[in-house]
Amino acid sequence: MRAFSFITQNPGKVAELQAKAHEFGLEIVHVNASYPELQADTLEEVVRHGLSYCKEKFPPLFIIEDSGLFIDDLHGFPGPYSSYVNKTIGNSGVVKLIGEGRPARFESAIGSYCRDFKLFHGRVEGRIVSSRGHRGFGFDPIFEYEGRTFAEMTVAEKNALSHRSKAAELFLEWASTII
Amino acid sequence: MRAFSFITQNPGKVAELQAKAHEFGLEIVHVNASYPELQADTLEEVVRHGLSYCKEKFPPLFIIEDSGLFIDDLHGFPGPYSSYVNKTIGNSGVVKLIGEGRPARFESAIGSYCRDFKLFHGRVEGRIVSSRGHRGFGFDPIFEYEGRTFAEMTVAEKNALSHRSKAAELFLEWASTII
Repeated sequence: MRAFSFITQNPGKVAELQAKAHEFGLEIVHVNASYPELQADTLEEVVRHGLSYCKEKFPPLFIIEDSGLFIDDLHGFPGPYSSYVNKTIGNSGVVKLIGEGRPARFESAIGSYCRDFKLFHGRVEGRIVSSRGHRGFGFDPIFEYEGRTFAEMTVAEKNALSHRSKAAELFLEWASTII
Repeated sequence: MRAFSFITQNPGKVAELQAKAHEFGLEIVHVNASYPELQADTLEEVVRHGLSYCKEKFPPLFIIEDSGLFIDDLHGFPGPYSSYVNKTIGNSGVVKLIGEGRPARFESAIGSYCRDFKLFHGRVEGRIVSSRGHRGFGFDPIFEYEGRTFAEMTVAEKNALSHRSKAAELFLEWASTII
């Protein structure tokens, strides 16, 4: 079974991808390391910069991932800065800014390095609500999809429809054809 | 007269420093270029990363600068992401989050490269108010210092007390002794 390294400090993301990878006859190995994350308006720029850095430090094949919550009514805020915004103003801060019921989407970008860089994108559309549920992490409790927040879903339910799982499927389909 | 390059895409910052530099017998030359800005919780990390990058591209002597608005009640938000936050949720978003009258401070970090890296910090304490005044840029209209917002001050008045001018003075004092 061929393996990709997943360079991240978030073991939760690795577990999510590992489950899916086995369906494609691939293995994901966790490399617990960090790389500089760029200040940029898009996930794609953050991931491309991370790939360039990691290419000098790690052998192929590897992947990195970045994700964020995008609210069009706030010009995309908090976007690539979701992690920082979550730990400073929190879920309540975002609800205060935008109010309940407004549309939002989670986006994920997976970047892979094999012979060259390749990016895979996933997204899921929902709306902002007051915090409900205790599972997941980050903005999951205030992101509602078809009546339930991500924090009200089991890991399996969330993984079946999340932005990251959609990007992961595109990556794994491609990876299973080339190695 | 010895000269330092100021690597920035903001000519306003250059003009501010040039006026002060002449008092110290130094010259500031504008290099209109950008460098990768890191996602980090402190200005110092952003500046140190920028210096490392610029060192490979530009000859000494040069400086870079980063600044931000820090609100302790919001765990430092928006901090090093002030520019992004300003263009997405804007001044009104910050007032909505924190309310009027709460303390805030502007911070500036100037990083210089001569034989090695050296950093200079400046800060000014004030409070958040509803938008007043039309001068300046960014969060100036909602940052009140001794009864007036930064956007209600002339450039000269603001420069006499701003976070950036304090960092600039420390830098210029040092620079005038070494070259």
